[in-house]
Amino acid sequence: MINYKAVLDNISKAVEPLSGQGRNADYIPALANVNPDKFGMCIVTTGGKSFETGDSAERFSLQSISKVFALAVCLSLRGESLWKRVGKEPSGTAFNSLVQLEVEHGVPRNPFINAGALVLADIMLTSLEHPEEDFIAFVRELCGSSTVNYNLEVACSERKTAYLNAAIANLLKFHSNIECDVERVLDFYTKICSIEMNCKELAKAFLAFANHKEKFSYAGVSLTSSQVKRMNAIMQTCGFYDEAGEFSYLVGLPGKSGVGGGIAAIYPGCYSVAVWSPRLNSKGNSIMGMKALELLTTETMESIF
Amino acid sequence: MINYKAVLDNISKAVEPLSGQGRNADYIPALANVNPDKFGMCIVTTGGKSFETGDSAERFSLQSISKVFALAVCLSLRGESLWKRVGKEPSGTAFNSLVQLEVEHGVPRNPFINAGALVLADIMLTSLEHPEEDFIAFVRELCGSSTVNYNLEVACSERKTAYLNAAIANLLKFHSNIECDVERVLDFYTKICSIEMNCKELAKAFLAFANHKEKFSYAGVSLTSSQVKRMNAIMQTCGFYDEAGEFSYLVGLPGKSGVGGGIAAIYPGCYSVAVWSPRLNSKGNSIMGMKALELLTTETMESIF
Amino acid sequence: MINYKAVLDNISKAVEPLSGQGRNADYIPALANVNPDKFGMCIVTTGGKSFETGDSAERFSLQSISKVFALAVCLSLRGESLWKRVGKEPSGTAFNSLVQLEVEHGVPRNPFINAGALVLADIMLTSLEHPEEDFIAFVRELCGSSTVNYNLEVACSERKTAYLNAAIANLLKFHSNIECDVERVLDFYTKICSIEMNCKELAKAFLAFANHKEKFSYAGVSLTSSQVKRMNAIMQTCGFYDEAGEFSYLVGLPGKSGVGGGIAAIYPGCYSVAVWSPRLNSKGNSIMGMKALELLTTETMESIF
Amino acid sequence: MINYKAVLDNISKAVEPLSGQGRNADYIPALANVNPDKFGMCIVTTGGKSFETGDSAERFSLQSISKVFALAVCLSLRGESLWKRVGKEPSGTAFNSLVQLEVEHGVPRNPFINAGALVLADIMLTSLEHPEEDFIAFVRELCGSSTVNYNLEVACSERKTAYLNAAIANLLKFHSNIECDVERVLDFYTKICSIEMNCKELAKAFLAFANHKEKFSYAGVSLTSSQVKRMNAIMQTCGFYDEAGEFSYLVGLPGKSGVGGGIAAIYPGCYSVAVWSPRLNSKGNSIMGMKALELLTTETMESIF
Repeated sequence: MINYKAVLDNISKAVEPLSGQGRNADYIPALANVNPDKFGMCIVTTGGKSFETGDSAERFSLQSISKVFALAVCLSLRGESLWKRVGKEPSGTAFNSLVQLEVEHGVPRNPFINAGALVLADIMLTSLEHPEEDFIAFVRELCGSSTVNYNLEVACSERKTAYLNAAIANLLKFHSNIECDVERVLDFYTKICSIEMNCKELAKAFLAFANHKEKFSYAGVSLTSSQVKRMNAIMQTCGFYDEAGEFSYLVGLPGKSGVGGGIAAIYPGCYSVAVWSPRLNSKGNSIMGMKALELLTTETMESIF
Repeated sequence: MINYKAVLDNISKAVEPLSGQGRNADYIPALANVNPDKFGMCIVTTGGKSFETGDSAERFSLQSISKVFALAVCLSLRGESLWKRVGKEPSGTAFNSLVQLEVEHGVPRNPFINAGALVLADIMLTSLEHPEEDFIAFVRELCGSSTVNYNLEVACSERKTAYLNAAIANLLKFHSNIECDVERVLDFYTKICSIEMNCKELAKAFLAFANHKEKFSYAGVSLTSSQVKRMNAIMQTCGFYDEAGEFSYLVGLPGKSGVGGGIAAIYPGCYSVAVWSPRLNSKGNSIMGMKALELLTTETMESIF
Repeated sequence: MINYKAVLDNISKAVEPLSGQGRNADYIPALANVNPDKFGMCIVTTGGKSFETGDSAERFSLQSISKVFALAVCLSLRGESLWKRVGKEPSGTAFNSLVQLEVEHGVPRNPFINAGALVLADIMLTSLEHPEEDFIAFVRELCGSSTVNYNLEVACSERKTAYLNAAIANLLKFHSNIECDVERVLDFYTKICSIEMNCKELAKAFLAFANHKEKFSYAGVSLTSSQVKRMNAIMQTCGFYDEAGEFSYLVGLPGKSGVGGGIAAIYPGCYSVAVWSPRLNSKGNSIMGMKALELLTTETMESIF
Repeated sequence: MINYKAVLDNISKAVEPLSGQGRNADYIPALANVNPDKFGMCIVTTGGKSFETGDSAERFSLQSISKVFALAVCLSLRGESLWKRVGKEPSGTAFNSLVQLEVEHGVPRNPFINAGALVLADIMLTSLEHPEEDFIAFVRELCGSSTVNYNLEVACSERKTAYLNAAIANLLKFHSNIECDVERVLDFYTKICSIEMNCKELAKAFLAFANHKEKFSYAGVSLTSSQVKRMNAIMQTCGFYDEAGEFSYLVGLPGKSGVGGGIAAIYPGCYSVAVWSPRLNSKGNSIMGMKALELLTTETMESIF
């Protein structure tokens, strides 16, 4: 029986030499100002136990991690027909590349690149009665915390200079892969990214994906066991921008990262894990977070492979 | 306890309606002439049992599946320094695309696209004393059959018209990522692809990757447990040309396909499976093979996710 | 001495068999509704004579042809430093491609693709006191007609669905190659494109470029003889989207086309010519217009080569 | 009446400050060893006069300039049907890019990029009885010197390391746009590039293109006046790799450059000019050569625009 608490504490020490490497995402002023030297980590098991270390109770900006929740909602709303509007192949290029989108006529490679998540936002806007309220209700039920919320200051700060996302959204609209008004889609998308959680809440939110033998049904969003497993598959191949292969190689767990410095991952049937540290590598993934998860699967010898 | 024999027989019946869809790879004359309506499948468990159905005893051309064996040899020879010469990210484009190679200055995206495997061939040529003999000796020990061999007629047939591979190899040489003579690399590469096995032999060969708690050591090629798991991770993200996401989504097992119509996959710790059917979809993967594996993990509810 | 009137009449008859081929630009509703079977042509010589045929007195939407006027203004405003913000190389791809812009970090290939002209619009907005008024004043003086104007209905119609231009403008802004507000730039750009002239006015406007020995100074916009010649050079290499080579090959005159079906060209030192016919080929150039100009230089044996 | 001799001497002095900038092409050993500080220039008029300065009597390697002669031969052999196998649009990317060739399915953008000239070599090989002899016979008659020849040492030196050209040729063969054996095409192509002339011979060879009112017929290669003018148009849009726009802008004459440091250009109806200086800019064009031609058209105020 593995002592996860001890493992986490060992990891916490082992990643310390990396502190100071990399830097916060700087294109969003609100993220640039976060204390870069934070490190928190939390494991929650399917058996109901949780283990934490460091700044695991401090909330941070989920950014792209929220795309996983958006995908769950859209898969519940649209089923397999969702894949007509977004692919499920790894992108092979930087997470915000317009090239692929143009070459492939407005169908984003997968739901976890910005283009794909903009399509998810559009789908929710056209299908949910109260998009903002319904989405946060789902997220709150998933993570078991009623205080989790959008950070409108972050959203606003990001929205003002989100020229690249505006370019992508307009290109999607040009290719008729956005139905709503472009500005509305950009607004909702930015809000989704601005949701804040701490490591414990995030691990809890991902436990539903690890726990695919349990019924997945939260605030009206329901997925079959097969759908949950398939979401894990997409995280595995597409969850880390153009570093999906590296993460799969080093860590061997499905997961999703965000430029806020968070990473969530799952060991199907056993546990979910969340880690947070704001300093990023050149690919936009948390340096200490990546290392912490590599150490986790190396030390426990638990991975999906 | 799952009755794999019954599962295989059910699958065999269930895929029948797909017969006639797609067609053999036609760019290699020797493959174009194979009876397109073959279907065979075999599971070999870590417990030593095997289950078969259909044409599982008939040999076929491994083609790209052999790249897995080449990677095992090169990882054993070079360790982590191998990744200086080839990446481990999914390619996101057609398996033979020159574009990415040119843009990324001669470092192939991963070892399972043609460009990557040409680099593997070059590494073996510079490091093995008797490349052809040493490589086949390893493959024979892995699959437990001393009669497995190169099919020189197929290799010769492919070599004559392999203009695209010649273009790729010359581009690699231009970028100094091939040391040997280009013609020699193309010869060895084509031989590697020409190896023939039947489903049982192929499943047996992949059992070593499923069985990562056992020592991996065959004919002088040794890998650590961690290296074996990481090879599985690469199969997961890069094993199916630009359909890696689709396979991961539908099947949920690491594996590798070839244009000969074969697919090998593993369920880590439990079994390996090989399936063969020559008719391919537009991405170069066996239509009945993909479906058979999807049915396998759906029916058994066993996948890595 | 060439009888240009007879030449024009012959051309008018010779292009008739092409009528019915191709179709109006359909992405701008106001252009889609233009009578597609119009054909007009006008030559104006440096000696002050003019020759016309067909619908040469009917105004049409200049669209991209206006980019030449915008370039003249910006070259006058910024001189050679203009080329820091926009290139002068042919694009080699479709006129609205985002790919090149992304790869080359926000510096458009040349001022005659949409991206380049958006930068020109931005430059005028930051440098002219009354951009709309100043620009049209220049254009009116150039063509010698005080009634030439923006067509705000066309501009409005185009603006509403200009998602691709909005994508391009946002991408330019992302790369810091637009200073003003994106919406403002798009508004002004669309107005510039909406200017209407007839063939005679257009030929007159281009005479200033043919007549480079005369002083170029109109409504405060001044260019040296060398600058005028260099503008002609850019028209030659970049004036016809990705059909610049074809036009150069068949016609052999510098010029600029627009999706309104107009083409203006010059024979330096001798004459300027404008032709209009709304039906376009797949590259966005007027079918009858291209043919008419090819016949003109073939029959007169006058080209720059 | 312009005193071209004085103009040339002025230019010779004016470009001196640029000496030392840039460097020889270094990927061909035989070119790397040429004295980099040479500068020669020669003008030959349609009236039969010639003017020279500097090292104008020293032979150098024509390299890509020879593609003009190859195009003349192929246009004579195939007429307009030639354009089914090669385009006539500027490439917009580096002269040896494989990307465009792959995207456009094996049809090179124009005859002056390496891919296009490999197709020209293939056409000559399939159509000329004695390709090497016939081609050099044409070139000799064009330049009026019976001692002009292939430099087989240079050809051999280049051939050994021509991996990029080998990649291109194999890609063309893959797309069925090369009929002959790939090795044979590469051999002939490399020989064509190895031809050596001095500035006076080169200017003389290009006089036939400037002099389009004269009959173009040399050693069995005949072109109409219209074909000659159209070749000039192609030089104008495609003659300078991805610096065609820059050259057109600064110089305003059709021409062709080579990595041997030579540039030939024509002022239609009046003269041809050749300049040579081995140091190249990052685009592969002679630095002093480009400047010399810019000064020529600036000082004489003679350009096609």
